[in-house]
Amino acid sequence: MCGIIGVFNNKNAAELATLGLFAEQHRGQESCGMAINDGTTIRLRKKMGLVKEVFNPRKLDFLKGNIAIGHVRYPTRGFSNIYNTQPFVVETLSGPSYALTCNGDIVNYDEIRKVLESKGVYFASLNEGELILKYIVYQVEKEGKFIVDAIHKLMKYVKGAYSTILATKKELYIFRDPYAFRPMSFGKLKDGTVVAASESCALDILNPEWQKEIEPAEIIVVNKNGIKQIKEDPNQFRETNNNKHCIFEHVYFSRPDSFIFGENVYKVRIKIGTYLAEGDKINPDVVIPVPDSSNFIALGYAKKKEVPFEFGLIRNHYVGRTFIEPEQTIRDESVYQKFNVLPNFFDGKKVVLVDDSIVRGTTIKKLVKLIKKAGAKEVHLRIGSPPTMFSCFYGIDTPTRSELIASSKKIEEIRRFVGSDTLQYLPIKNLKKTVSKPQDYCYACFDGKYPVR
Amino acid sequence: MCGIIGVFNNKNAAELATLGLFAEQHRGQESCGMAINDGTTIRLRKKMGLVKEVFNPRKLDFLKGNIAIGHVRYPTRGFSNIYNTQPFVVETLSGPSYALTCNGDIVNYDEIRKVLESKGVYFASLNEGELILKYIVYQVEKEGKFIVDAIHKLMKYVKGAYSTILATKKELYIFRDPYAFRPMSFGKLKDGTVVAASESCALDILNPEWQKEIEPAEIIVVNKNGIKQIKEDPNQFRETNNNKHCIFEHVYFSRPDSFIFGENVYKVRIKIGTYLAEGDKINPDVVIPVPDSSNFIALGYAKKKEVPFEFGLIRNHYVGRTFIEPEQTIRDESVYQKFNVLPNFFDGKKVVLVDDSIVRGTTIKKLVKLIKKAGAKEVHLRIGSPPTMFSCFYGIDTPTRSELIASSKKIEEIRRFVGSDTLQYLPIKNLKKTVSKPQDYCYACFDGKYPVR
Amino acid sequence: MCGIIGVFNNKNAAELATLGLFAEQHRGQESCGMAINDGTTIRLRKKMGLVKEVFNPRKLDFLKGNIAIGHVRYPTRGFSNIYNTQPFVVETLSGPSYALTCNGDIVNYDEIRKVLESKGVYFASLNEGELILKYIVYQVEKEGKFIVDAIHKLMKYVKGAYSTILATKKELYIFRDPYAFRPMSFGKLKDGTVVAASESCALDILNPEWQKEIEPAEIIVVNKNGIKQIKEDPNQFRETNNNKHCIFEHVYFSRPDSFIFGENVYKVRIKIGTYLAEGDKINPDVVIPVPDSSNFIALGYAKKKEVPFEFGLIRNHYVGRTFIEPEQTIRDESVYQKFNVLPNFFDGKKVVLVDDSIVRGTTIKKLVKLIKKAGAKEVHLRIGSPPTMFSCFYGIDTPTRSELIASSKKIEEIRRFVGSDTLQYLPIKNLKKTVSKPQDYCYACFDGKYPVR
Amino acid sequence: MCGIIGVFNNKNAAELATLGLFAEQHRGQESCGMAINDGTTIRLRKKMGLVKEVFNPRKLDFLKGNIAIGHVRYPTRGFSNIYNTQPFVVETLSGPSYALTCNGDIVNYDEIRKVLESKGVYFASLNEGELILKYIVYQVEKEGKFIVDAIHKLMKYVKGAYSTILATKKELYIFRDPYAFRPMSFGKLKDGTVVAASESCALDILNPEWQKEIEPAEIIVVNKNGIKQIKEDPNQFRETNNNKHCIFEHVYFSRPDSFIFGENVYKVRIKIGTYLAEGDKINPDVVIPVPDSSNFIALGYAKKKEVPFEFGLIRNHYVGRTFIEPEQTIRDESVYQKFNVLPNFFDGKKVVLVDDSIVRGTTIKKLVKLIKKAGAKEVHLRIGSPPTMFSCFYGIDTPTRSELIASSKKIEEIRRFVGSDTLQYLPIKNLKKTVSKPQDYCYACFDGKYPVR
Repeated sequence: MCGIIGVFNNKNAAELATLGLFAEQHRGQESCGMAINDGTTIRLRKKMGLVKEVFNPRKLDFLKGNIAIGHVRYPTRGFSNIYNTQPFVVETLSGPSYALTCNGDIVNYDEIRKVLESKGVYFASLNEGELILKYIVYQVEKEGKFIVDAIHKLMKYVKGAYSTILATKKELYIFRDPYAFRPMSFGKLKDGTVVAASESCALDILNPEWQKEIEPAEIIVVNKNGIKQIKEDPNQFRETNNNKHCIFEHVYFSRPDSFIFGENVYKVRIKIGTYLAEGDKINPDVVIPVPDSSNFIALGYAKKKEVPFEFGLIRNHYVGRTFIEPEQTIRDESVYQKFNVLPNFFDGKKVVLVDDSIVRGTTIKKLVKLIKKAGAKEVHLRIGSPPTMFSCFYGIDTPTRSELIASSKKIEEIRRFVGSDTLQYLPIKNLKKTVSKPQDYCYACFDGKYPVR
Repeated sequence: MCGIIGVFNNKNAAELATLGLFAEQHRGQESCGMAINDGTTIRLRKKMGLVKEVFNPRKLDFLKGNIAIGHVRYPTRGFSNIYNTQPFVVETLSGPSYALTCNGDIVNYDEIRKVLESKGVYFASLNEGELILKYIVYQVEKEGKFIVDAIHKLMKYVKGAYSTILATKKELYIFRDPYAFRPMSFGKLKDGTVVAASESCALDILNPEWQKEIEPAEIIVVNKNGIKQIKEDPNQFRETNNNKHCIFEHVYFSRPDSFIFGENVYKVRIKIGTYLAEGDKINPDVVIPVPDSSNFIALGYAKKKEVPFEFGLIRNHYVGRTFIEPEQTIRDESVYQKFNVLPNFFDGKKVVLVDDSIVRGTTIKKLVKLIKKAGAKEVHLRIGSPPTMFSCFYGIDTPTRSELIASSKKIEEIRRFVGSDTLQYLPIKNLKKTVSKPQDYCYACFDGKYPVR
Repeated sequence: MCGIIGVFNNKNAAELATLGLFAEQHRGQESCGMAINDGTTIRLRKKMGLVKEVFNPRKLDFLKGNIAIGHVRYPTRGFSNIYNTQPFVVETLSGPSYALTCNGDIVNYDEIRKVLESKGVYFASLNEGELILKYIVYQVEKEGKFIVDAIHKLMKYVKGAYSTILATKKELYIFRDPYAFRPMSFGKLKDGTVVAASESCALDILNPEWQKEIEPAEIIVVNKNGIKQIKEDPNQFRETNNNKHCIFEHVYFSRPDSFIFGENVYKVRIKIGTYLAEGDKINPDVVIPVPDSSNFIALGYAKKKEVPFEFGLIRNHYVGRTFIEPEQTIRDESVYQKFNVLPNFFDGKKVVLVDDSIVRGTTIKKLVKLIKKAGAKEVHLRIGSPPTMFSCFYGIDTPTRSELIASSKKIEEIRRFVGSDTLQYLPIKNLKKTVSKPQDYCYACFDGKYPVR
Repeated sequence: MCGIIGVFNNKNAAELATLGLFAEQHRGQESCGMAINDGTTIRLRKKMGLVKEVFNPRKLDFLKGNIAIGHVRYPTRGFSNIYNTQPFVVETLSGPSYALTCNGDIVNYDEIRKVLESKGVYFASLNEGELILKYIVYQVEKEGKFIVDAIHKLMKYVKGAYSTILATKKELYIFRDPYAFRPMSFGKLKDGTVVAASESCALDILNPEWQKEIEPAEIIVVNKNGIKQIKEDPNQFRETNNNKHCIFEHVYFSRPDSFIFGENVYKVRIKIGTYLAEGDKINPDVVIPVPDSSNFIALGYAKKKEVPFEFGLIRNHYVGRTFIEPEQTIRDESVYQKFNVLPNFFDGKKVVLVDDSIVRGTTIKKLVKLIKKAGAKEVHLRIGSPPTMFSCFYGIDTPTRSELIASSKKIEEIRRFVGSDTLQYLPIKNLKKTVSKPQDYCYACFDGKYPVR
């Protein structure tokens, strides 16, 4: 999971990009980077750490230019180090000329890389961003293609998820893969600045005049002449006739204040809670979320059930987000550092505890134990998605199948493992009801139906 | 506002203290420090920055010892720099021998310092912790007093708020001022380790066998023989016959999962919301909190009104807490970085917006504007405390009176300034109903009745 | 002034290059850099500071590869910063592919750069190394030339001094300009490693089996097949039929243990001293050098005169070399930090003080004053070169003409300025006698006859 | 070996101290430190590294005060780390009150430390400076002695070498041990500033009006009333009736431009050379020194012999001084990095190579080999001191006896080891002739007669 940002034609491009990255920090906390273009050269700054550390005002003073693209990273392919951090830049005799950042993952990475390497293209990292960049630049520089044609060729042959921003010295190209796996929006500020971001919440912070989502297989070209939208039929580039948006962006990953895939994320989550409650026979005293990711699901559940929504768990916000800490060991130890129970809250209560999903089950197991120790009579666990049984190959860092508890255990076994009194997941058919165009989503992590491999 | 921690008799004292400080990070984010005692010497590490930065595992490897005391700081007296950061240590020919950390503020600081300086005592900072430490050590080293007697003398002559932990090479002394302005608890782990902290939530993280609050004027002495509680009548050291707990700890400062002054903080906040709703004639469509500090107040309000509690504002947790950023300029610019509205949420709605208090009014003014711009028909602002009209001299960094909007403006003027349709504060008589012993609290920031000056 | 080094086909290439740079540190102390080639990629490390700081063992551990080229810099063109530090690397789609380091200066830099820029070539610095590199790579990559042909074209059109080492992923090219302004040697170690350096002393440290100087307009190509020497008539590339070695390398710049331009530097210096003494009627009590640069000149002078050679000035070696500190202010203040007189040494003595040259005259003025204050009866200043009246455009950082004291003052005026009792320079006709082929040298800084402009 | 400096009553005290330390850098290159007193507090800065790195102008800006004492260290007792670096400071309730720096070594360190520790005095290091400081402060603070009396007691009971500067908040005390092992001078600048230093060359840089050596057992007290010299008969504090100056300061350690123990160092060295030549039957073609330490010895030798003095070895000044690199491994590898031969210089020559002393013999062995490889017909090694057979306990870091080549090998064996054709040492009776009061010196490293143990 990563977040990207692009700013075109603003003398404070780096500052605006920083604000946008800041709003997308939840999408990646390991490292961040920015490429800034002053019309002559492209400067690059990448570093391990949070946006506020890497792009503090003192550093921004040195990053002058009109075009900026940026990235927050949470490692999928490649180790969590600076060499795998985006953006990537291609230098030629004519100077650093192309910079690219993307969010996603490439399914046929090895194959494409081998072809390019056989043609003499050099790779410094294992990152998909470098692959996409060099694929395009190779077509342009060595085969004389126009950039738009090179991107279309990419859409045809490079398979996977890639919401992308490419900057040249004069232009910005914004596009995403034909399946539209990951979100991607762009917009315009009142002063004419064009901005693009993974999530709409990152555009909101810049107060845009208008913003809209990019279509699958669409290419937005921005230059001094304005914005040009190049639309192609995505079906010519893909094996299905539907989009394959990542349903997990709604369930967990995106910020609730984002508008993605034509939906308000928080509304989808409230619906998830509603459907979760519908068939549920339990009569709890109280409904509590695992904060903050499950707040809206729990709110929807509580409303439907007409049972009080309460906060029973307090989260310490001075730690990162569980899901994206890269090492198992850190994850385990940090559970108790992250959550505390309200004192005298649970005594004798029948609790419905709501979470968005179960990956390994180790965190939720500890939370159930914590709540029971705090006096709860019963803990009924409700999960706002179906059992996560399959790994994702399109940009979410789910572990290998063998580590996914639902891939080897039945629901009753999972319940016993986590220690709750009951356990219910949201059936996939109900999850599909929470969005207006269910056929346009990828559910591979739940059903194993990978749209492209 | 600061948070303190103490650990006695544990070979991982520094690790445990770090966990505790971590849970108290909301009480101070500017700098932090720790003094670790290995029986022979006391080592000191203080640095600007968050706990997770200053006491990362690599640094903890070098901080070995059985006794640790620590501090997170949010500057009151003295500039935000390392010289004013706690703990403080007194070295003598026999080595670093005393370390002290405290939370509070001293009213007669100048007077006490002048007396000590006239006796040759040296001060390296403007920090109250250094004053208290050197006051005690002077009595002990120069006048031959026992430490307990020195603390009793301190309680008599040094006026103000001071929840304190003093470490010698062999012992820990935990005590607070006779008015018990600030919270302070101690407890025992299963392995015999004694721990003390500003807030109970910092002890919770260490999973104590038992914990309790320290009485006003009480001294807890911990050494190899165990725990000794030395109780004195606090009235001999104070000008009133009541405690003077800071009511603002309940309103805003403490974590909701803490138990302080004999109350569960979250329950006080829910009561605040309830009383706020009681006399309120408005019939809103929705009740939303300024997250996260007003969540429980809004929850109490919504329940009482039987109106839906919702989240309409989303907070970015990758920034610090507004109230404790030390510079005005940073505060203003960071409002839009910190909050975003849910899209399509407010359209045509009659909103009750709940906040805990209004200091300068600049942040809430911007939030009201944001919500109205998002489509709200009406915004009714409800504040969970009376108008803040007076500065605090006991450890909370309220600005000077002239900066407090309520010190110069009437409620209707404030309403006009912040731009809400209506504005109601919680009357002081109702605030007093939210705690079981209202006479044991200080309300000086609301009524100007300073218990000690 | 700069020093360069190249190592081919040694698994400890970076270590050997570091040793060589270390021996050339006197040629540049501002910054240093190295490019290391592991067969796949070329890694670059450049930093302000001395070789021992920048390439310490810990850093060398990360610089693995079989080919290394390095540079120590003392700024001529461009500010003293990291962007102007060598080596330079050209990256293309096929990765970092060419690395180059050189010692010299380009007379028609602006003209050549403009031409290249008009063809789209990008420059990140004002450094002549980048110009030479991109000139060559442009011919190779864009015009399909062989590297050797590109270098020959360079020799024809790019005017100035450039002792150069170019590394590709597989080969090393060593060459110098057709005038052979700056020294340049190469050699072979017993294990087959090929090494190249500005001065022979940097090869000595590597204990070579043999070493020799590179001919003007010669190109040495080193690859897995061995060493190939490509000789061309230099006259086809130059406006004279003679070499134009820098005479100042003998006078001051090179290390006395180097063998350059077919001469042992120390022997030239002894001859300078001898000729300086020849016509000199003074009968001093003692001859002392300004250490260490004038030691051999003074030795030659003393021997010829049959007067005792002594050390009267002690130099503190913990400061840099006067001539190459880049700022006037540092130079002035550091005189007294750098030299001290022997106590009770000068009392009543008639002293001949020998220096190699006078640039601004400020340092020697202070030394004369110091010696007189120490009791010398008379101080007779003898300079081992003619008056320095003209700026150098071939790589030595002489200041602009107006700052050269000899450009505006007659010898008697200079004598009065520096405060010596007498002052004699070495006449140019005698300087020419100190080398075996005087017509093969450039004396432009003395006579203003610039061989190429 | 260490160098110390003291400055009293100058608003740029830290800058002057830095210049002095700079001139004493040859006495220690491992670490340096300074304590600066602004009348109220004493600030301390210590760091590994050279003076120019640790006390650069940017750092000096923060070191304001009227009194400064400083130190350059080359480790004798204790590891080469920051904890063993001087100065040391004692803090009490009245603040950091005493700072001390010294050069020397304490023979009965363990005994004195044990006594102090039994009285509760705490030690943070293994450094003799801390011992001396705390010994004095204990007498003053705990036993009510005047500082001068405490120093006299120190002279009586603490045995060894200690040239010392002690700073209080108002005064400077300068003194040395009753044997006067190490050099120590003080002086006065024209503006009234009082300065003190290990070597006179460090005072020279400050251009003093007058300077003189401190007598054994003398205490110089400097305060606002001026300079007071307190002289006592040193014999009451020592076991001999003579001074025991370190003869090795003349042979090797001090700078040739220093005046110490009533002698000009360079003149002693010239005499050493003269006596070395006297009985020597060899008729060399040339005399060359191991530069720079043996320059004057070789000069004296050459003059006496009427044989040309020449430079045959060139030293790279960008490395440290062999003798004071602390690790054996670094020493061995760095020989070839440090010295090079003049090309074509030695061919067929009969060379006298002059060095000051032989410690382990490994460096000189490599130099002899280098010279022979360079073509010398014969190499005759002449050493300006007797065989070094015993370790020093008074401040010079000679290795343990077993590592001293002369402790186990006869001269002929040493000659065979180092590979020279002949080898002659200066007999001790001749060494004694080089100084005017030979009975006032310690020759323990040559004859094993330790004046105090």
